[in-house]
Amino acid sequence: MQTHFEQELMDLKERLLTMASHAEAAVSNSVKAWMERDDALAQKVDHDDSILDRLEKEIDEMAIQLLSKAPLASDLRLISVAMKVSQNLERVGDEATKIARRARDLNEEAPLKGWGDIPSMAQIALDMLKSALDSFVHRDPNRARAIIPRDKEVDLLNKKLHRELADYMVADPATITRCLKLMVISKSLERIADHATNVAEEVVYLCEARDIRHEE
Amino acid sequence: MQTHFEQELMDLKERLLTMASHAEAAVSNSVKAWMERDDALAQKVDHDDSILDRLEKEIDEMAIQLLSKAPLASDLRLISVAMKVSQNLERVGDEATKIARRARDLNEEAPLKGWGDIPSMAQIALDMLKSALDSFVHRDPNRARAIIPRDKEVDLLNKKLHRELADYMVADPATITRCLKLMVISKSLERIADHATNVAEEVVYLCEARDIRHEE
Repeated sequence: MQTHFEQELMDLKERLLTMASHAEAAVSNSVKAWMERDDALAQKVDHDDSILDRLEKEIDEMAIQLLSKAPLASDLRLISVAMKVSQNLERVGDEATKIARRARDLNEEAPLKGWGDIPSMAQIALDMLKSALDSFVHRDPNRARAIIPRDKEVDLLNKKLHRELADYMVADPATITRCLKLMVISKSLERIADHATNVAEEVVYLCEARDIRHEE
Repeated sequence: MQTHFEQELMDLKERLLTMASHAEAAVSNSVKAWMERDDALAQKVDHDDSILDRLEKEIDEMAIQLLSKAPLASDLRLISVAMKVSQNLERVGDEATKIARRARDLNEEAPLKGWGDIPSMAQIALDMLKSALDSFVHRDPNRARAIIPRDKEVDLLNKKLHRELADYMVADPATITRCLKLMVISKSLERIADHATNVAEEVVYLCEARDIRHEE
């Protein structure tokens, strides 16, 4: 028979999964809103960000309640990891909102010629986020570890795009404001990949009780 | 007589204060390195960032240890707040490193005419950070609350500077790469103010057991 504590711990995990699916949807919708110049979708992302804010608060409250009753060290780890994962997901939502707002700005102007790397950056960042959350659900540290090196890939794509956009601005100053907005989108995707990496590191810690942050 | 638990809790607080003074120094040195074109100081900020990374890990370890033994709800709150504050300080360090790196880049080029708002943004962000940490030490929720509205001030200064720099680039495309670096510095200061605000919100929660995040 399940104890009351176990039931509460399951509720916490479920709430976190709800939050995770909202965060994923926010990212993919914000990118879609940019690619398809879809203002209504961008507005929806912005509006729905409050759901993630609320879920973060709820999860923190549940976690603090549970911390006082946790019988095992592994429960404490799970609860503290849940708090950190939810904080990262809340920030993923903030970045998605930033992308959605820039998408709306860009929709008011003539499109620039396609920026090849942004869609593939978005794809990698979203894959990383999904994988990180799956590795949490399945408590799979190997899957979590596999995510971490991909962060460098996204960093490099962001730097490359930053350079390309800077060159583009120099060549055609009329594009400066649009290029700056694309830089913000690219930077937000890079930060989403950072948050996915943070989640993956927390999963490794959860499974192995080993802190791998800041290891190179 | 002090119990073993109380002693450990004091150690945790002390470690957090050490971390706080490192984070403050990182911010003020990174800004100084930019203003005074001081490469060696910028390098020092970059190098010392590993101290903050290490302290974050140590504080997390101490906190997890303590969570299992906390006798009171208020202890649990303090421990979970300490973990969050340390995470914010670690990120303050990352932003200071970003400022220091851009300062070094800018030192290699001719200086642009003075960007009046960056020094005052830096001053506000640093004041907010100091105040937030003082409000934590003195458990002063009023002082913490007073910090929160200043975040908007810094946001506005950052937006204003972003617009000014964009105009500057349009007027003189030769300045584009330098202006982009100043934008990064301004954005990092804005994020440092965000982290100070996060710390202030945690202090209010600690003192009043009330979550004021995402309130407007």
